[in-house]
Amino acid sequence: MTEYILQLQCEDQAGIIHAVSSGLLDCSANIVEQAQFSDPDTNQFCLRTRFETDQDSLEAVRSALLSHVDRFAPRLDLRHSHDHRRMLIMVSKFEHCLEDLLYHYSNGDLQVDIPAIVSNHEDARALAQAHGIEFIYLPVTPETKRAQEEKLRELVDQHQVDIVVLARYMQVLSPELCNSLPGRIVNIHHSFLPGFVGAKPYHQAYKRGVKMIGATSHFVTADLDEGPIIEQDIQPVGHAQTVENLISIGRDVERRVLSRTVDLLAQDRVFQVGRRTVIFS
Amino acid sequence: MTEYILQLQCEDQAGIIHAVSSGLLDCSANIVEQAQFSDPDTNQFCLRTRFETDQDSLEAVRSALLSHVDRFAPRLDLRHSHDHRRMLIMVSKFEHCLEDLLYHYSNGDLQVDIPAIVSNHEDARALAQAHGIEFIYLPVTPETKRAQEEKLRELVDQHQVDIVVLARYMQVLSPELCNSLPGRIVNIHHSFLPGFVGAKPYHQAYKRGVKMIGATSHFVTADLDEGPIIEQDIQPVGHAQTVENLISIGRDVERRVLSRTVDLLAQDRVFQVGRRTVIFS
Amino acid sequence: MTEYILQLQCEDQAGIIHAVSSGLLDCSANIVEQAQFSDPDTNQFCLRTRFETDQDSLEAVRSALLSHVDRFAPRLDLRHSHDHRRMLIMVSKFEHCLEDLLYHYSNGDLQVDIPAIVSNHEDARALAQAHGIEFIYLPVTPETKRAQEEKLRELVDQHQVDIVVLARYMQVLSPELCNSLPGRIVNIHHSFLPGFVGAKPYHQAYKRGVKMIGATSHFVTADLDEGPIIEQDIQPVGHAQTVENLISIGRDVERRVLSRTVDLLAQDRVFQVGRRTVIFS
Amino acid sequence: MTEYILQLQCEDQAGIIHAVSSGLLDCSANIVEQAQFSDPDTNQFCLRTRFETDQDSLEAVRSALLSHVDRFAPRLDLRHSHDHRRMLIMVSKFEHCLEDLLYHYSNGDLQVDIPAIVSNHEDARALAQAHGIEFIYLPVTPETKRAQEEKLRELVDQHQVDIVVLARYMQVLSPELCNSLPGRIVNIHHSFLPGFVGAKPYHQAYKRGVKMIGATSHFVTADLDEGPIIEQDIQPVGHAQTVENLISIGRDVERRVLSRTVDLLAQDRVFQVGRRTVIFS
Repeated sequence: MTEYILQLQCEDQAGIIHAVSSGLLDCSANIVEQAQFSDPDTNQFCLRTRFETDQDSLEAVRSALLSHVDRFAPRLDLRHSHDHRRMLIMVSKFEHCLEDLLYHYSNGDLQVDIPAIVSNHEDARALAQAHGIEFIYLPVTPETKRAQEEKLRELVDQHQVDIVVLARYMQVLSPELCNSLPGRIVNIHHSFLPGFVGAKPYHQAYKRGVKMIGATSHFVTADLDEGPIIEQDIQPVGHAQTVENLISIGRDVERRVLSRTVDLLAQDRVFQVGRRTVIFS
Repeated sequence: MTEYILQLQCEDQAGIIHAVSSGLLDCSANIVEQAQFSDPDTNQFCLRTRFETDQDSLEAVRSALLSHVDRFAPRLDLRHSHDHRRMLIMVSKFEHCLEDLLYHYSNGDLQVDIPAIVSNHEDARALAQAHGIEFIYLPVTPETKRAQEEKLRELVDQHQVDIVVLARYMQVLSPELCNSLPGRIVNIHHSFLPGFVGAKPYHQAYKRGVKMIGATSHFVTADLDEGPIIEQDIQPVGHAQTVENLISIGRDVERRVLSRTVDLLAQDRVFQVGRRTVIFS
Repeated sequence: MTEYILQLQCEDQAGIIHAVSSGLLDCSANIVEQAQFSDPDTNQFCLRTRFETDQDSLEAVRSALLSHVDRFAPRLDLRHSHDHRRMLIMVSKFEHCLEDLLYHYSNGDLQVDIPAIVSNHEDARALAQAHGIEFIYLPVTPETKRAQEEKLRELVDQHQVDIVVLARYMQVLSPELCNSLPGRIVNIHHSFLPGFVGAKPYHQAYKRGVKMIGATSHFVTADLDEGPIIEQDIQPVGHAQTVENLISIGRDVERRVLSRTVDLLAQDRVFQVGRRTVIFS
Repeated sequence: MTEYILQLQCEDQAGIIHAVSSGLLDCSANIVEQAQFSDPDTNQFCLRTRFETDQDSLEAVRSALLSHVDRFAPRLDLRHSHDHRRMLIMVSKFEHCLEDLLYHYSNGDLQVDIPAIVSNHEDARALAQAHGIEFIYLPVTPETKRAQEEKLRELVDQHQVDIVVLARYMQVLSPELCNSLPGRIVNIHHSFLPGFVGAKPYHQAYKRGVKMIGATSHFVTADLDEGPIIEQDIQPVGHAQTVENLISIGRDVERRVLSRTVDLLAQDRVFQVGRRTVIFS
């Protein structure tokens, strides 16, 4: 038996699940795990299905499905479970998130392929190589930004990258790049209750005496740091902690949140509906 | 449009979702939220579907579904969403869980009907009446236990009770009673890391210096406190807390866990598969 | 033996703990639990000490202490442990926080005295009376606000109130009132990652797809919702939750955070240093 | 100014804090952060004090303190803050905890010295060396266990090790070794609600359908896995997670708990009192 994962998203209407299950019946497939949600605001239908069949040909299964669901004009994403999502990781100088991703990748917790790690600095080269992953140095200046992003786009195509993971990549991506990869770039950043605008957020958080340090992962859109939220977490802090302690705790929360985010994406559990996400966890 | 919630459970095989969706298509129903999981150990297929249709007759919808799924010999539980689950709450002297249930019930957070509160003590009468709920005093002694449980069984039938909630009911139910209401009685009790056997668990936890106080809700089976776990939570504690503080914190965790459990049950999100639960939260 | 709790705060300098312990030695006191922190930013020294002595006279112990520490010009707050803090609770129409406070108060979890509950609406009268607490109706309009707050100030004096707890009191207090009770008024409000400015924050949070609902308690200063934070907590949420669900979860988090805050204050564990708090939990 | 950290533990009686502060006054020291707790069950007095003075000589400060506190026969542990605790880490084949410790060590989050990593297997050699730490291979068989532990004892002395950290070291230490390093060996292991005795705990937890995976760190005593608990944490799990997923999540919780434990020990925040710990966090 071969296991598949299907993501299907389209405008909601009656009969979609029936059509999908008709296609699966044609392949004598058995559904193992299915989750569906129709977002009331956007009227988007989201379906994730994990199923088994003795039909090993991806194209045959896709055709069987499409013959039933084509009329809904869906975004349909089908793969063999063992055919992992391909993630390009981007990083600048802070390696804490990259380090946690690679730890989980190396011991098999994160079932993804990482064709390359890209950075605008040389710092992470050793870490990438220690894990046997190609390191690509793509420095960037205001003058070369356009060319650098074109290079990046080529890498995405060349390596058949599904998701670009910004693991503390400290450059703002151009709107063009964001728009060319919709729902395919994720980012991690700090979060606080309340939020702080402007520079040195940890210093502001310290001065305000917050009792929690948080982190948020989100899809990257042209509207920076405002893309649909995927995952959030916090960690309690207290008065005795210095700004440096808060920053250190912030790193821990960011690691945790980004690694979980990549795991959710690796399992095709994340859908984007308007400004929100639907997550079948 | 009328909204329905369907729970369906049976032995797993190919074609069940197709059959269900065929039945729903016959009613021109639109699925709003669906979750399915097939437990690999027990081979049990579990499906929860929330759907809308302009067919208002429960019986008509049930017939439409059965005509397609009858061959799977499922447990099929269908209701109008606005037709709330009926919960009989049992309590002894400690009212903390009851109090939290009634708070959430009264302000509409818990969408359940509570036809009666049953107790082997008189203590909770005032609280029940303050919420306009019938209070039934059913004292119990070793000699009257059998008769008391028969009375209880009658109440369950008479009030068409779906779930019996033991909200710190301090009597052990007989195996006969447990077996007569499989998957329909839930209980709450304290939990620790590590667990403690025997009397005065909070005193043991204090002496052992645990850093967390927990609570577990579970289905009641003839094997006391060993039924399938529904929900768990913990709260951190420290060295300065006395045994009395631990007991007080334990009450808070029990309240939280039992209220969440009743909410999950109120929404038909809980399935029992062998010694485990499947929960579509 | 009589148990005391001491709070002492002053500008930091060498010798304060020695002076305090000298005073305690003069009373043959034994320290049971002590916590001290000097805030590096404000140079404020904060000390909480719980001690036992056979000297039963509060005034005698205070004199002994003052004879040693007077030269530091401290704020010194001394009481018998069994002499509970007096809390005036204010509420408008939403009773969820009040309800949780009274539950914990009634079963002895919150060791406070509540001389009265004040409201600008009649709604909470029954709840107050069910717990045997005086309910004082103080309606307010723009025209009567000044007089109403004067009335409130009188109640604080008359009932020797230590702390005013705003348990979802929906009126903005005047700067005069805030300034007349520095560090003695606490409030609770919702919090999100990221924060939302303006009306209908839960609707904004829903539209933005946040994965956590939070609440923050803080001291009230003339700068509304910007006073020093005392306690924060969050609860995870998901895509299937409606705005109404978020609001309901928000109530649960607010209840939890405010009850913990009152417990910290009841035990004299909270100090205000500039815009932050020091909390010896 | 030089910063010091003092840990002092002895039988409780009046006057200890006064004596300590007298000694500190003799050194013109200023206390920055102090926490004290007297455990009612064991009558043990525990004090942690962080202070600053222009007296740079550790011996001079220690003498000044001892001249005042010697009569209490305390365990007195004094060090310059910048003089880090020395941790010997032991590991077998699972490197997940070691990996997280070294990440936090390398980026400065964990302020400890790690003179060596000891293992009964060769697996972790590369990881140790990548962080510039000596790796010592000490294989063990039933026949060589006694000699191996003697070697270990020598390493502890030779490297002036304060704490031995068992980061998934899968050998049971002999009672002799445990007793020779009281309060100086810490271990990490999985924990569940409820607990599971015997082999394959994650398989048992899976079959029982637990909703939380936990980990506990504790001091090692001759009574294995029953030493005083230092830190605990949990992570929620659900029905869709396989045994392998639970084991993976267990690794994450163990990493987190052990790294926090080492941080608490690195800051001298942990005291052992009978079967419990006092932790000034």
